[in-house]
Amino acid sequence: MKKFIFYSLILLSMSIEAKPTNIIFLIGDGMGPAYTTAYRYYSDNPKTPKVESTIFDTLLIGSASTYPDDDTIVTDSAAAATALATGHKTYNGAVGINRNKQKLTSILKTAKSRGYNTGIVVTSELSHATPAGFVAHSTSRKNKYDIAKQFYTNKFDGKPIVDLMLGGGTKYFNKELTLGKRTKTVTKWLKSAGYKYFKSLDELDQLNTLPALGLFAEKGLTAAINSEHPDRLSIMTEAALRVLGKDEKPFFLMIEASQIDWCGHSNDISCAMAEMDDFAKTLTMVKHYVDESKNTLMVATADHSTGGLSLGYNKIYQWKADIVKQVHATTRRIAEQLEGSKAIATDWHKFIDFSLTESEERTLAAVIDNKDEIKDVVRQIIINRSKTGWTTKGHDAVDVQVFAAGVGSRAFRGFQDNTDISRKLNYYLINGA
Amino acid sequence: MKKFIFYSLILLSMSIEAKPTNIIFLIGDGMGPAYTTAYRYYSDNPKTPKVESTIFDTLLIGSASTYPDDDTIVTDSAAAATALATGHKTYNGAVGINRNKQKLTSILKTAKSRGYNTGIVVTSELSHATPAGFVAHSTSRKNKYDIAKQFYTNKFDGKPIVDLMLGGGTKYFNKELTLGKRTKTVTKWLKSAGYKYFKSLDELDQLNTLPALGLFAEKGLTAAINSEHPDRLSIMTEAALRVLGKDEKPFFLMIEASQIDWCGHSNDISCAMAEMDDFAKTLTMVKHYVDESKNTLMVATADHSTGGLSLGYNKIYQWKADIVKQVHATTRRIAEQLEGSKAIATDWHKFIDFSLTESEERTLAAVIDNKDEIKDVVRQIIINRSKTGWTTKGHDAVDVQVFAAGVGSRAFRGFQDNTDISRKLNYYLINGA
Repeated sequence: MKKFIFYSLILLSMSIEAKPTNIIFLIGDGMGPAYTTAYRYYSDNPKTPKVESTIFDTLLIGSASTYPDDDTIVTDSAAAATALATGHKTYNGAVGINRNKQKLTSILKTAKSRGYNTGIVVTSELSHATPAGFVAHSTSRKNKYDIAKQFYTNKFDGKPIVDLMLGGGTKYFNKELTLGKRTKTVTKWLKSAGYKYFKSLDELDQLNTLPALGLFAEKGLTAAINSEHPDRLSIMTEAALRVLGKDEKPFFLMIEASQIDWCGHSNDISCAMAEMDDFAKTLTMVKHYVDESKNTLMVATADHSTGGLSLGYNKIYQWKADIVKQVHATTRRIAEQLEGSKAIATDWHKFIDFSLTESEERTLAAVIDNKDEIKDVVRQIIINRSKTGWTTKGHDAVDVQVFAAGVGSRAFRGFQDNTDISRKLNYYLINGA
Repeated sequence: MKKFIFYSLILLSMSIEAKPTNIIFLIGDGMGPAYTTAYRYYSDNPKTPKVESTIFDTLLIGSASTYPDDDTIVTDSAAAATALATGHKTYNGAVGINRNKQKLTSILKTAKSRGYNTGIVVTSELSHATPAGFVAHSTSRKNKYDIAKQFYTNKFDGKPIVDLMLGGGTKYFNKELTLGKRTKTVTKWLKSAGYKYFKSLDELDQLNTLPALGLFAEKGLTAAINSEHPDRLSIMTEAALRVLGKDEKPFFLMIEASQIDWCGHSNDISCAMAEMDDFAKTLTMVKHYVDESKNTLMVATADHSTGGLSLGYNKIYQWKADIVKQVHATTRRIAEQLEGSKAIATDWHKFIDFSLTESEERTLAAVIDNKDEIKDVVRQIIINRSKTGWTTKGHDAVDVQVFAAGVGSRAFRGFQDNTDISRKLNYYLINGA
């Protein structure tokens, strides 16, 4: 009963507030509070005495709990995506269904059914857990081919529910799959449904009409820190805002910085900060759009935090952002390139500015023929030098932050559950504009 | 210039808002976001399907950065206390002075000079870093006798600046110290200045007049989890609100849950949750006071986070709050009591509900004559069973949360630096009531 009164009061206050026409929902996968803190010191200009605020600081408005509907407390990305997309908790691994295997309606589908254009922009494969939660229904996130298929089969009014799909995933979208009596790739089905198909980020300036599909990698896009296009999320977002913004229909756009989480799983802080940089650029662009448009709401959050990241470790009261900035590739890529090296100190400097100590070089030399061991050694050197702590290569359960701006953003102030975020967005979709 | 406009706008918006008469400033020492998250699951009633919100959730309003004025990014409690008390950054270890060793004015002293009654309530010794930041000036937090002395010598209008002092510290306050030509204890000096002296929590129902001093332990009060009075912060706070609230003068009260940090330094999660429980009770009581009084502002935050705490560790997607609840003493106390035990399994159950596995009992038996090694083993058993991660026995730099309610609380919304919290409170002290 108290819960009912609480929600009634929230909805009453929301109904008094102006309602947004467009909704942009951004998710930093794995981006717990230690990541936004780290990014402030990483992106700070050391030449000025003050620490500059970031776009995350500007937009911070509240926080959210993320526990799934099982006894684990620590969510995975599928359960969290389902909570954020549908307003309902589910068990870890589940996509768009509850613990009784009932299909749940995503806010993206609700938006479509209310006459919105819809878009999804991610740096993972489109069939990955977070985007999947907005489109598909599956007992397991591992069913990636089936999930890819649902980007075509899950329809409203005879048309696929996502008008704009930008991300990775040719492995899943361009494989022949059987649908009824026919066998075709999802990409071909979508093309036959009118989708214009883009294969490279460079083509995105020609994205001017809906529906459209862009697939820019076999699975996830190249990690920002390894990429020729470190700002690939911003590039895709710019194209998405241009095409969605010029249509007369309102739009719902979900944007995910998918790979912050992947860097966290690798306990790779420089990788994570490069992803954060792309996400920060994206948020700045979206905030600018919100400021200009006057009728758009942006809400950003994380699905969970990854890695048990801490700034400072092992009793040392220090975090060395300058060390983090001196690493220019993922530990995985550095390990691949160093494997079998005959000139370790020289090859090291192709990726990392600071020099190896004699002891570090000896440790590395001892494993130089084993890629996996090199990766562990490189990671540990960066951890020791930067004083970055990690407790896990999985997720942790710390509350995530909530960021918002634009029309209706006040509703997201303070603490809420992740399902509440979705429910508030759903309220706006049904009562908005 | 941008910073100037920003502050001008904040102050303008604050000047439009109603101003509080009384200010209650609460600090959870070491209480980063993983602690308030953990406390929600720890205090949840497992018999209900929903996870109940906590007082922290109810009060959450923003966050704060905590970096000190040196190149470490990770603050200690003295620099953080100075920032929160004076609105100025300083180097780690410094109390109430800046990096040029200039004395900084604390908001408590400002309150006193504006005709407020003032109070400090802590579970550490009163001369510990956090309360020290509000009263004393010293190049190092380690000068505890000198800091204790300043509770008497730091005066406004001929009287000590703190009218009500409740906490621990007979070691420092009841030792003969030299002041000018005279040698006396700080307690005797304060008594001769009219302070009524309380030696036990049970006497606090007789606390009816100001000024007053209560010292309830040699150094810090007994840890909540080990104590006959696990709610000793709430008990002291109740007495403080009663005596301060009935006076005709407005009041400024600083309350610190000092030992959340100490449990964090010991990587002792059950210890930390017991301290959080006392702090939650205290916050609930203060919130009730704020609701009743109509002219009081409460602001709560942490000075920093401790331990690099994470819920979930070592790739395991789970945190076991039920395990944490089954531990009923600090690891230190358990180790002291188990030392030399001839009946480990039986003695174990005097403190911990869950039973040892054979393997755990063997590991413990191997070190049973060494208190320090027992402590390490017990801690590791609790970590493994509860899936609690720690990266350090020191501090980490994650942003802390900001909680507020009552008149003027809106000013603390969103992100701010820890010095901004102090500056906003200072504005209210100067322009309030």
